[in-house]
Amino acid sequence: MHPLDTATTLRAIAPGRLTGTTSDAYWNFAGPFGGYTAALLMRAVMDDPRRLGPPVAQTINYCGAMTKGAFEIVVTLARSGKATQHWSLELHQDGAVAATGSIICANRRETFAHVVATRPTAPPPVDVPRLTPDGRLPWLSSYDFRFVEGGPGRVFGNDAPTADGLGPSRTMLWLKDAPDRPLDFVSLSALCDCFILRLVQMRGTMVPMSTVSMTSYFHAMPGELSSQGTAHLLGIADAKRFAANFHDQSMELWASDGTLLASGVQTVWYKE
Amino acid sequence: MHPLDTATTLRAIAPGRLTGTTSDAYWNFAGPFGGYTAALLMRAVMDDPRRLGPPVAQTINYCGAMTKGAFEIVVTLARSGKATQHWSLELHQDGAVAATGSIICANRRETFAHVVATRPTAPPPVDVPRLTPDGRLPWLSSYDFRFVEGGPGRVFGNDAPTADGLGPSRTMLWLKDAPDRPLDFVSLSALCDCFILRLVQMRGTMVPMSTVSMTSYFHAMPGELSSQGTAHLLGIADAKRFAANFHDQSMELWASDGTLLASGVQTVWYKE
Repeated sequence: MHPLDTATTLRAIAPGRLTGTTSDAYWNFAGPFGGYTAALLMRAVMDDPRRLGPPVAQTINYCGAMTKGAFEIVVTLARSGKATQHWSLELHQDGAVAATGSIICANRRETFAHVVATRPTAPPPVDVPRLTPDGRLPWLSSYDFRFVEGGPGRVFGNDAPTADGLGPSRTMLWLKDAPDRPLDFVSLSALCDCFILRLVQMRGTMVPMSTVSMTSYFHAMPGELSSQGTAHLLGIADAKRFAANFHDQSMELWASDGTLLASGVQTVWYKE
Repeated sequence: MHPLDTATTLRAIAPGRLTGTTSDAYWNFAGPFGGYTAALLMRAVMDDPRRLGPPVAQTINYCGAMTKGAFEIVVTLARSGKATQHWSLELHQDGAVAATGSIICANRRETFAHVVATRPTAPPPVDVPRLTPDGRLPWLSSYDFRFVEGGPGRVFGNDAPTADGLGPSRTMLWLKDAPDRPLDFVSLSALCDCFILRLVQMRGTMVPMSTVSMTSYFHAMPGELSSQGTAHLLGIADAKRFAANFHDQSMELWASDGTLLASGVQTVWYKE
């Protein structure tokens, strides 16, 4: 079984209540990386027999760091119609709410289709060196990261600071699960959070910080995920404003063939 | 009392339960425009004595159209810490959930600050003609809209179609409450949804459609809102991909002095 599937195995303990156990493979420095929590809540809905169709949107509010061990997920189908379905989710641990969230699923059919955004050009993944994590943050080793621009050199202390002392806000990289795993909505949900926080990217220093809320939109139809298989996605991250303990971050995830699979935003708290 | 304040007056009926009545001033064609629902949920949290500090993020999931008349809001403080506070919200009407949502408030202090995105240039509002709505969609008359680019000409049938038969995806406009009202988080929350849906903007035709979920990030500190007062905000809206009943939409709201006050995304369902 792939580590992501092991890490997101859930067991029903009552109607709308599931339990599972955290996995070290997706651990960050305080709790698992946020994409793991996203994948857990996505798994809870994907496995639910009441699900209408593929997910189109997910919001996760990170209320507190998860600790190692057991957790419980409460799944509520807030409203279901012919076209869309609204799920509300809570992740509980040690008597507190660790995360709240919502997932919207939909009945998706062929309609008017149009592409506005186009994928930026990038050298193929085979021509870009893979990041070799030092093991301090285990989740980094659960992905294959190949930085095309805005790489983590400054984060790991290898690059000279730029003129204003800050690195670029924008990062472009190839990324996928390691070991390989065919893309599905559970892994895509986690990949939406696989970008180094822009605060770290730009300042190159670590201060206490945490994603507080993340919203991901899944443009991808199920057939587009199966076509992508185990190939690298092209990811783009950027930010608009840093002020008074918070900054925003935006991201796009593109398929090999140039299809936009997901886009999203997050807001990040930082201490100083 | 300003129409927005009348429309968002809430009365506590039990701990964490509030009631109010819809207002015709913010009516769209089926239910109020989504920004009104956003303002209602924001009001519920802004008025709560347990609130830690200003809001930084809001997500609203539009589960079903609201009808005219009374509604109830259920407010739950999911988790509160020294730095952030997570609120979960539900809007009930006629025995069903009409909207779910979350708002995050925070203790905001001076920290590292940096601006990445800069405001595009635009002629001053006084040099841009104000939209004169025809009254079919009452909420349009509750705002002062001045389109700088990507205007609603096509929507109202005044413009020739472009070469591919679609209008531009991007709109830039000046906007503010009408009549004037000093900017606060309640009105800012509604202004985040004041953009004509990109599907209508591009196709120039009306089909059944509805925002399904909206996430807004409030970069603005309270002092930045009071400095803005009753001046026009510069709004930008765009989209990335339209496919299989859904398209995304992104937006930015800028202050007169070039400060980014809010940014956000929404996902929109459309029938065909």
